[in-house]
Amino acid sequence: MIDELKQIVGAANVLTGADMARYASDWTGKYVSQPLAVARPANTAEVSALVKWANRTGTPVVPVSGNSGLAGGTKADGALMISLERLKAIRDIRPQARMAIVEAGVILSDVHNAVEAQGLIFPLTFGAKGSAMIGGVLSTNAGGSNVLRYGNTRDLVLGIEAVLPTGEVMDIMSELHKDNSGYNLRHLLIGAEGTLGIITAAVLKLHPKPRAYATAMVAAPSLPAALDLLNRLQEVTGGCVEAFEYMPRLHIEVHKEIKPGAREPFDEPHEINILVEVGVTAPRDAIPGPDGQAPVAAYLEQVLADMFEEGAVLDAVVAQNEAQRREMWERREAAAEISLSRKPAIVSDIAVPLDKVDTFLTIMETRLPQVDPGARPVIVSHLGDGNIHYSVWPASQDEQVHDAIIEAVEEEVRKLGGSFSAEHGIGVSKLPSMRRRKNPVALAAMRAIKAALDPNGILNPGKLLP
Amino acid sequence: MIDELKQIVGAANVLTGADMARYASDWTGKYVSQPLAVARPANTAEVSALVKWANRTGTPVVPVSGNSGLAGGTKADGALMISLERLKAIRDIRPQARMAIVEAGVILSDVHNAVEAQGLIFPLTFGAKGSAMIGGVLSTNAGGSNVLRYGNTRDLVLGIEAVLPTGEVMDIMSELHKDNSGYNLRHLLIGAEGTLGIITAAVLKLHPKPRAYATAMVAAPSLPAALDLLNRLQEVTGGCVEAFEYMPRLHIEVHKEIKPGAREPFDEPHEINILVEVGVTAPRDAIPGPDGQAPVAAYLEQVLADMFEEGAVLDAVVAQNEAQRREMWERREAAAEISLSRKPAIVSDIAVPLDKVDTFLTIMETRLPQVDPGARPVIVSHLGDGNIHYSVWPASQDEQVHDAIIEAVEEEVRKLGGSFSAEHGIGVSKLPSMRRRKNPVALAAMRAIKAALDPNGILNPGKLLP
Repeated sequence: MIDELKQIVGAANVLTGADMARYASDWTGKYVSQPLAVARPANTAEVSALVKWANRTGTPVVPVSGNSGLAGGTKADGALMISLERLKAIRDIRPQARMAIVEAGVILSDVHNAVEAQGLIFPLTFGAKGSAMIGGVLSTNAGGSNVLRYGNTRDLVLGIEAVLPTGEVMDIMSELHKDNSGYNLRHLLIGAEGTLGIITAAVLKLHPKPRAYATAMVAAPSLPAALDLLNRLQEVTGGCVEAFEYMPRLHIEVHKEIKPGAREPFDEPHEINILVEVGVTAPRDAIPGPDGQAPVAAYLEQVLADMFEEGAVLDAVVAQNEAQRREMWERREAAAEISLSRKPAIVSDIAVPLDKVDTFLTIMETRLPQVDPGARPVIVSHLGDGNIHYSVWPASQDEQVHDAIIEAVEEEVRKLGGSFSAEHGIGVSKLPSMRRRKNPVALAAMRAIKAALDPNGILNPGKLLP
Repeated sequence: MIDELKQIVGAANVLTGADMARYASDWTGKYVSQPLAVARPANTAEVSALVKWANRTGTPVVPVSGNSGLAGGTKADGALMISLERLKAIRDIRPQARMAIVEAGVILSDVHNAVEAQGLIFPLTFGAKGSAMIGGVLSTNAGGSNVLRYGNTRDLVLGIEAVLPTGEVMDIMSELHKDNSGYNLRHLLIGAEGTLGIITAAVLKLHPKPRAYATAMVAAPSLPAALDLLNRLQEVTGGCVEAFEYMPRLHIEVHKEIKPGAREPFDEPHEINILVEVGVTAPRDAIPGPDGQAPVAAYLEQVLADMFEEGAVLDAVVAQNEAQRREMWERREAAAEISLSRKPAIVSDIAVPLDKVDTFLTIMETRLPQVDPGARPVIVSHLGDGNIHYSVWPASQDEQVHDAIIEAVEEEVRKLGGSFSAEHGIGVSKLPSMRRRKNPVALAAMRAIKAALDPNGILNPGKLLP
């Protein structure tokens, strides 16, 4: 078997035993597995040859690129891992058409750097950008910080090339903004977590690089008032709000405890603290005046002052320089450290409709103490996406109580029409939730599609579908 | 059989014979068929019961809503037509969450009116908006005039409810902006032309209503220069360009011939004439000053003046009032009359990458005379989408030559990575193109999905897939 793999990718690119270590364990360390081997193909044709071999021999295949997922999607016991890391060409950047054509093994931050040199951005970004690769980014439909303005990965891709479970190469590397010729297979493979095909290349949409940002901390009287603020800011900026991040009181307090020098955002403490960032491309909004301030910042100040007068905003501070902006972002970016500063922390990644975030949190104020009296929620939310990272510090040390907390969170999310996996995907970690909570008709349709495209069940088996 | 249908939807809602006339012929009059019967269910449960009956009896089913398609997607010989027209509830409008929940039989312009009363827009719009219904709009992934800014139908839908070919109801009426829990079945059914399921309801995304528009006619020195202009306008307006419509010299000339009072857009004739419209939501851009002009118009004038100085624009006229704006739009909207003012006209609906429109048109300048010396192209293009309505007035009266023209157009489009169906879909009209030009691996995958979800092949058979 190893010999056959070596014939396809060359002896140096078939790893076994201890050489597989960095592929066989993901970065969280939670998912450690025993692959059969790791193959590192040089191009799409070699990926195709490997998958054809696997399909013929009935060998499970697990694709891996940056391996920075959070859901165990690359767990590979008894499987051939196909690493996309050598497919690392940026094939083309076409600034006038606002697109980049890249292979699956290109690191996300390398895409950022290459297109920024052309005055453009690929706006998708998140913590693991320095190791995540395009293949995994697409396969998990990754989210991150700029989804509010630019959408998820799905919204930033025009075309893909993928090796199907039979080993055939499906070249739908469309560069088109309009194409109504049959089922949308691109959207089917994006977010399929490598269970329907291995994405080997993609056509990415680019956007103009904002010339200036205006950033503020805002205290709102309520979450519905905060949503009004977002809608109003979207209206007056023409949809240029890039971040709208909610941090409750506890976030601010723990931040001060664990970070030396961390400060309150306002003179008085407030319950609802929101980080707002607006990005503008128009020179008239961006070029600083004699006072050194970009017009967008003065403009944001004016909107916030108007809303303060109306009582729709309780307090607001606009960053006057990059240091003040960094301070605001550092407070937000400390979220993971804050939630993990006490152990155990029960984490979740949920989404509800935009106007139901308040309802969800209010319900949980009653429900959580019923399950575990004394438990405390540690929350941070991409409020503009309805995405809440709702973590809990339990009072009880009983694992059954911890499971009951997850159950309660997911049940209330379901009642509000929400999702138990907003951006991290299913992998193996959310299979129980998928089994219990996914609409059964939709789940059956997914299984039918999987069986139709992958009759031998070789591609990333045991992931996504329970 | 008719009795069974009557038991499901009531006697008054099963039509046969002459009563079927308005369903059995589409508005183009090109696709006339002989359905078995037309059933008009009142709700999703009745749609489900009808489809279960059809699946059990092996009866073909053709869904129909507004019946305003251009591709023959509702041709229904020997089939049960299921009309969605009675599913006409606007179930909910939630302005704060920017969404509307509507049923398949709601007419597009009724959605427009209902949400505009709330200061919002559902931006999708096209000529047939007064008869097209949401079910068909989603099933064909309809395009239209505002795609440049807001995307196709696909980009404006958060969730759907659909009756699958087995008759099961799939309720994925998500109101979420983020949901990574399994394959994206919404995107699979949108644009599937009723072959994978009958969409019965949808959650639509709404946008703020622009407060003011600035509209201009611009003469550009070349199509690449025009694309630069678009990119620059997108940059300075933060992506607020709503229309960017290219009309070549011939369009202007024929317009003057066929429309009394029609005028040249500029003092001097130009080859490349572009209608630009920018829509703004910010009060500071929209509220007219003492001169009655909204700031956005002055602003657009400034950008165009700067580009004129650089030679990137040859001439430009900004509409100073609504009458001037209407005149600009009437010139564009005369496109269908212009292309059909001589018979025969060979029409097409193609898309190429944004930066290949010029290449395509240049190639056709050589290729078209080789196929039919004396033939003239009549072009209008949604230039910002890469979508060209490339019609031809042939010199030859020979139908084989006309077929050769279509063949030449589609072949050059294919070489440039384009699509033979940008926005109208496949239906029955583009089945030959689908057979000859669609990527065969993608086509095989589509067939596998169709067979998996519709094993008895009852839903809209003979459409979309050759």
